[in-house]
Amino acid sequence: MFDSKKYFSKRLGSMEGSAIRDLLKQAGVPGFISLGGGYPDPKSFPSSLFDTLNQRVKNKYGNGVYQYGKTEGFDPLLQILPQFFQRANRKVKAFPDTISITTGSQQALTMLGMLFIDPGDLIAVESPTYLGAIQAFNPFGPKYIEMETDENGIVPENLDQLLTKHPSIKFMYTVSTFQNPTGKTIPPERRKQIATLLVKHGKLAIEDDPYSELRYEGVPVPSLQSFAHDHVIHLFTFSKTFAPDFRLGGIVAPPDIRNASVMIKQGLDLCTSNHDQAMVAEYLSGNYLDPHIKEIVALYKPRRDCMMKAIDTYFPSIFQHTCPEGGMFIWVSLKEGISLEEEKLDMKKILLETVSQKVGFVPGSAFFARKDHSPFSMRLNFTNQTEENIEKGIEIIGKILQKHLKL
Amino acid sequence: MFDSKKYFSKRLGSMEGSAIRDLLKQAGVPGFISLGGGYPDPKSFPSSLFDTLNQRVKNKYGNGVYQYGKTEGFDPLLQILPQFFQRANRKVKAFPDTISITTGSQQALTMLGMLFIDPGDLIAVESPTYLGAIQAFNPFGPKYIEMETDENGIVPENLDQLLTKHPSIKFMYTVSTFQNPTGKTIPPERRKQIATLLVKHGKLAIEDDPYSELRYEGVPVPSLQSFAHDHVIHLFTFSKTFAPDFRLGGIVAPPDIRNASVMIKQGLDLCTSNHDQAMVAEYLSGNYLDPHIKEIVALYKPRRDCMMKAIDTYFPSIFQHTCPEGGMFIWVSLKEGISLEEEKLDMKKILLETVSQKVGFVPGSAFFARKDHSPFSMRLNFTNQTEENIEKGIEIIGKILQKHLKL
Repeated sequence: MFDSKKYFSKRLGSMEGSAIRDLLKQAGVPGFISLGGGYPDPKSFPSSLFDTLNQRVKNKYGNGVYQYGKTEGFDPLLQILPQFFQRANRKVKAFPDTISITTGSQQALTMLGMLFIDPGDLIAVESPTYLGAIQAFNPFGPKYIEMETDENGIVPENLDQLLTKHPSIKFMYTVSTFQNPTGKTIPPERRKQIATLLVKHGKLAIEDDPYSELRYEGVPVPSLQSFAHDHVIHLFTFSKTFAPDFRLGGIVAPPDIRNASVMIKQGLDLCTSNHDQAMVAEYLSGNYLDPHIKEIVALYKPRRDCMMKAIDTYFPSIFQHTCPEGGMFIWVSLKEGISLEEEKLDMKKILLETVSQKVGFVPGSAFFARKDHSPFSMRLNFTNQTEENIEKGIEIIGKILQKHLKL
Repeated sequence: MFDSKKYFSKRLGSMEGSAIRDLLKQAGVPGFISLGGGYPDPKSFPSSLFDTLNQRVKNKYGNGVYQYGKTEGFDPLLQILPQFFQRANRKVKAFPDTISITTGSQQALTMLGMLFIDPGDLIAVESPTYLGAIQAFNPFGPKYIEMETDENGIVPENLDQLLTKHPSIKFMYTVSTFQNPTGKTIPPERRKQIATLLVKHGKLAIEDDPYSELRYEGVPVPSLQSFAHDHVIHLFTFSKTFAPDFRLGGIVAPPDIRNASVMIKQGLDLCTSNHDQAMVAEYLSGNYLDPHIKEIVALYKPRRDCMMKAIDTYFPSIFQHTCPEGGMFIWVSLKEGISLEEEKLDMKKILLETVSQKVGFVPGSAFFARKDHSPFSMRLNFTNQTEENIEKGIEIIGKILQKHLKL
């Protein structure tokens, strides 16, 4: 067999298959309770609408909709999106020509990595941060600096120090609302402070917001972009509301960045499906989003509540968990001041054992950009399992933790 | 306004908007006869089938098909593809686990660029070559070496010399059948010679094959991959048969390359639409492809014939054109031995004039990887205009050529 590996690029060394992906594989086994992954429940998809929307698309656009489309996006969707961005959970300043449609918001991360990152460039990320962003940025060879976070996300004082100490930072990356993996939301006052710091230091932020529609309680928070639209690139997706399979997301950005990102997308996949964009345009213009969100909230809120209660019940008391007001994830870590012997701090070993009992989660270490430290922690997803399964899964993990930690 | 350009990566300097893209914009003007672009005719889309296929997908897979899918592809499609690859126009050796589905074959080019190219690496490309491949590879900073071509495509003797002289070449890239932009096909005997050279020099080839189903005459040619499957990465797409909007293509490659490309795709867009993959799986398993290809051939063959005849009639006799047995393009260049004064050799000026008369084409210079030389030439697309428009468009271009060249 001819050895092709010798021709692989050097960047392959910095890339690795993800824990997420391996978990997706487990999740296919019948009876497996996956609290890993970041999947919506297929019950949440507005599939009873699909035929209606499809018929409207057909009537309006005919065959032509299946042709290659414009790289920046399908006009009727670009026209209606600014209205979507006015929702209280975004308040994003956007015009049709500051939006660029992407094949899922994952593609937006690759486009921005390609646009900004030269090998060795410094990128500031939350600690922990979204694993998929790291995967998208890594091929371009950045170095990561971790921004300190507390229960309200990024700590402005620390960010100020970081930006002062490292003036070469290219951009900061944040999932500002219902963060993946922690579920944390940066409060408005703090967003304002962060925006002020961006202006003060002349820096850019990428604000990745896949989750803000999924709010189960509390008051909607305007985007970071709303406080400094020249300095913030805002990402959105319909994967958590409409359905992941439509692979529909996008970028809102100042013109130079938006135009360069469109040029980059040409090389990546030419264009995103017109038909799928037309479906989402009909979904938005038909005012289906609001009632649909209500249904999603009714499905997910009890699951979140159930998971928090189950953790309180079944996990050893040395653990704490976040109480996210929305989104898809709960983050479990050791309570402050708790320390354990080194040999107990092996979350992968615990995962192997829960998997053998058909329960999955993602070890927290997967979400730290720098591998030299990562607290004993886990990310739990509550959107794609019934309450019964959530309780059962958490009970199993809890017992294994008890046993492993000899508590 | 905050200047974000200072943060752009160095690679942006090597990237530029494409002639293709600018032409797509013209093509939207009513009455414009675009012989640029590389669009199929929407009349060729099997849209009368879409409802049937959609219904089958719904019945078979329900809501679950709209969930995130496996990065490598949707199983039922991976299972049926090896049969598709046995067709006489491909004869590609493939198994479900040597195939990776991509969001159009354009994405495959990005994936392979990311997988193989370190800055400064040498890539061998045809002269001329597919513009979109250059756009996909450029962000990774390669240098291009042009392989000499004649009326039968790549010249093996020249390739042998190139590979001997430049042992560091990472891979060669070829559109082996009905090439974009020339329409040329490498004959079987020459494919065998090229395969032998790949083995002799221990090299890889990327064989990009979007067009081989669209054969209007002559005998199907087996893929380059069929002569050296360990050394050839074969790309395919359903954009020219099913419809571009499904954004469905893929890679057939030896396991190491296939697996690395799947890992790379995770970072790019996680997965390609399951639903769209299921639609194509039903299209293939329902045996709709063969009768559909017959319809496409019946639509495009007269257009090709019409365009060749119109060029013979209306273009100055100093020009020659290719006579492709299939595909979407005809290439026009000066006959051998013809030379013109420098100031006449400005194809962009001619394009500007044809565009003012509502006819578009792509100047040949767009298709040369190295910008230091490019013969006076043009690419003409015949698939997305009626015969009437083709004749009218070619007549207009011919008259402008006459006038400009003072012939």
